[in-house]
Amino acid sequence: MASSTHPNAACAACKFLRRKCTQGCVFSPYFPPEDPTKFVNVHKIFGASNVSKLLNEIAAHQREDAVNSLAYEAEARIKDPVYGCVGAITVLQRQVLQSQKELEATHADLIRFSSDLIH
Amino acid sequence: MASSTHPNAACAACKFLRRKCTQGCVFSPYFPPEDPTKFVNVHKIFGASNVSKLLNEIAAHQREDAVNSLAYEAEARIKDPVYGCVGAITVLQRQVLQSQKELEATHADLIRFSSDLIH
Repeated sequence: MASSTHPNAACAACKFLRRKCTQGCVFSPYFPPEDPTKFVNVHKIFGASNVSKLLNEIAAHQREDAVNSLAYEAEARIKDPVYGCVGAITVLQRQVLQSQKELEATHADLIRFSSDLIH
Repeated sequence: MASSTHPNAACAACKFLRRKCTQGCVFSPYFPPEDPTKFVNVHKIFGASNVSKLLNEIAAHQREDAVNSLAYEAEARIKDPVYGCVGAITVLQRQVLQSQKELEATHADLIRFSSDLIH
């Protein structure tokens, strides 16, 4: 956490937004100054104000997970402006279907072999 | 498309933002007035300004896909403010791993059976 490793340094969000990083800064624990890209991406895609609202609506112990999922989504959207991380969902859904098909075929082979063994 | 089905009606975005929906409106083809929630969700999570910037950066024929993926992500984030659609990715990744494990086990069974058949 930036607040513990850099007690006096402004977090990446406050640095980028050129404002004073106060003790209660909602971004500070999740946007360390060493990783400016994380904030730049999230700000570009969601906007600092939307992220701040979202963080204030969820429990403190879940905010780190929320920021990391937002950062993941933002990075995916920057890499693929059309599909973002929905592209990854489509690929995974296809993989699940493909695996299920293979599994069914292998099960069918297995049933065939075991019935051959019995007869 | 709203622009063709409702040539004179403001799109959901312009209605929500209380502005005149002009012929070149970047939102109009993708946010029909019949589906106000689509715009409300996307605006809440990404902000109209970010969406407009994003749409202007991509080719016109890909904008519909982009809007639909943004709407999907926004809905997922509203349903699950902590993980959003990254939650779906995690579930799918687990499903893929589980299927692969099952497939490996079934293949191993198959090899055992076929070697039993030979001997």
